[in-house]
Amino acid sequence: MPELRHDPVQRRWVIISTERASRPQEFAVERGQGATDRDTCPFCPGHEEATPPQIGAFADPDNPSAWKVRVVANKFPALRIEGDLERAAVGQYDRMNGVGAHEVIVETPHHDKDLADLPVEDVAAVLRMYRERIIDLQRDMRFRYILIFRNRGAAAGASLEHPHSQLIATPITPRTVSVELQSAREHYALKERCIFCDIIAQELGNQSRIVAKDADYVTWCPYASRFPFEMCVAPLRHDADYASLDDGRLFSLARHLREVIRRMKASLNDPPYNFLLHTAPSYHLLNRRPGYWSTIEMDWHWHIEILPRLVKTAGFEWGSGFYINPTPPEDAARFLREVRFPAD
Amino acid sequence: MPELRHDPVQRRWVIISTERASRPQEFAVERGQGATDRDTCPFCPGHEEATPPQIGAFADPDNPSAWKVRVVANKFPALRIEGDLERAAVGQYDRMNGVGAHEVIVETPHHDKDLADLPVEDVAAVLRMYRERIIDLQRDMRFRYILIFRNRGAAAGASLEHPHSQLIATPITPRTVSVELQSAREHYALKERCIFCDIIAQELGNQSRIVAKDADYVTWCPYASRFPFEMCVAPLRHDADYASLDDGRLFSLARHLREVIRRMKASLNDPPYNFLLHTAPSYHLLNRRPGYWSTIEMDWHWHIEILPRLVKTAGFEWGSGFYINPTPPEDAARFLREVRFPAD
Repeated sequence: MPELRHDPVQRRWVIISTERASRPQEFAVERGQGATDRDTCPFCPGHEEATPPQIGAFADPDNPSAWKVRVVANKFPALRIEGDLERAAVGQYDRMNGVGAHEVIVETPHHDKDLADLPVEDVAAVLRMYRERIIDLQRDMRFRYILIFRNRGAAAGASLEHPHSQLIATPITPRTVSVELQSAREHYALKERCIFCDIIAQELGNQSRIVAKDADYVTWCPYASRFPFEMCVAPLRHDADYASLDDGRLFSLARHLREVIRRMKASLNDPPYNFLLHTAPSYHLLNRRPGYWSTIEMDWHWHIEILPRLVKTAGFEWGSGFYINPTPPEDAARFLREVRFPAD
Repeated sequence: MPELRHDPVQRRWVIISTERASRPQEFAVERGQGATDRDTCPFCPGHEEATPPQIGAFADPDNPSAWKVRVVANKFPALRIEGDLERAAVGQYDRMNGVGAHEVIVETPHHDKDLADLPVEDVAAVLRMYRERIIDLQRDMRFRYILIFRNRGAAAGASLEHPHSQLIATPITPRTVSVELQSAREHYALKERCIFCDIIAQELGNQSRIVAKDADYVTWCPYASRFPFEMCVAPLRHDADYASLDDGRLFSLARHLREVIRRMKASLNDPPYNFLLHTAPSYHLLNRRPGYWSTIEMDWHWHIEILPRLVKTAGFEWGSGFYINPTPPEDAARFLREVRFPAD
């Protein structure tokens, strides 16, 4: 059973997982991109029995092997779905048993198409599956947060080439998210405005960091980008909860997201990248905390961060939490705006 | 001129540097380990003119090219030493000009010896140079923190193979350090004890995570290690300030540090790694903050973090600030304790 451990100095929870490599010799050779051909790929059609049990799928009811999107449990889960949450002190440390969910969303039957290479309808199907999984897991009162993320390319941490996203539901609110939630909440308490709406207004007024904008969504390179060509995608209209999006808004997001990923791929010669969805934590959980009244519907604004992995994180970043970005976001945005990228 | 920018949501400062790669094509090929042979290495003896001006050296006064340790300005500095600190608002964002110091400590004239391969006296000379540079830069009231770190191996962010450390002095306290400082301060306020002394006492009582211990120093794998085989080195006797160490204590640190790095290299087949020195911020600066009274001499305990780079950081870690470590630190410590490693 994995466990969660808390560091009292760095104030950070860590998942100690024992399902993956553990002995020194297993690290000796850096593990590259695995399963690069269809014959051995567990996510390719016809290999459905090679994955853990299916959790959901968009498939033809008359022909279940003709699926478009498929969700399975992660074969090497960082957290386990079974069991109650147990918290305990270990001397001055804190531990929790590693309860959570860890799922894989296989985005397409096509082994060698990145998300951005699919037709808009197929991208929209992936985004609908994200919504479906979030709604399902938000019912589970053990989970504080549901993070959906995507690793593309070995340098971005992908261990399988076949296009897929992952979902991890955690029994604590992850630190990055809780800092963002606190900023948003304090800004709202002071100004009765959403901090993201304010940022979007400043970016739209200034224009220099805007990458793309349509009727529903905007993408910009953040003012204090940690990484070169980092982008943030958000709805123009205030909206806290990704899971509340209707099919029309998801279709429009699919079109927008596909465009900005295509711009990034064309600018940077198909770089490894991560993307992360920061939606609101479950409202009903927040409002059960003693002495806490949540304004999250007003103060939070869901967004997607896209992080190309072009530079290595070194000692300075690990030791300081302070990033050195060699590309001003104004330059990055100009490249991304002006690049020629393949349309359909 | 580089600049510091603050993200109001993530509450994080970022250095936007324009001295390094910036245009997309410069990222197209991942930059590997540069200058791998002595003929082109700027840090090898005889190539002193290939580096920026020398800041300090331990050298024979009669033969300055016979140096043992040499400090030069970084050729591509993340921050610039010239100028006053200027702070300004940019709409709702904050900026500061990028004033700071960025130095390179060339540890040895030998191109192909890692720090842990040197005689103890030579390791001690490197540690004395750290002390000398910290004492010198602490006089500069513009700097809040001085971080010394070391990147070894391309996967750990080293762009040159010749053994070297780096120093960055920053006009803000980096976030990782300020979280640690806050934890230490609050623990002291509550208990009138140092949090690190408490942790060391628990680790010595439990023994399962201890890697090495001698009369002056102890190394353990932290209870909530983020990375496999992560280690923390600290003095057994309470001490806030690395810069106050005398030559005897530095010699004893050199012996201890060399041993634990040798243990790591033997266990993990010479892995890429980072190490980071977390010493106290300058006392005189802390006590100038309005309304702030520092207990730092009592609450802080300097330490060195050693981070082997065996696993890639992926979307989950970036999106959550929450790490998955596949190796329980008890297992790591047992391997590190039991491994046979080359003595002199």
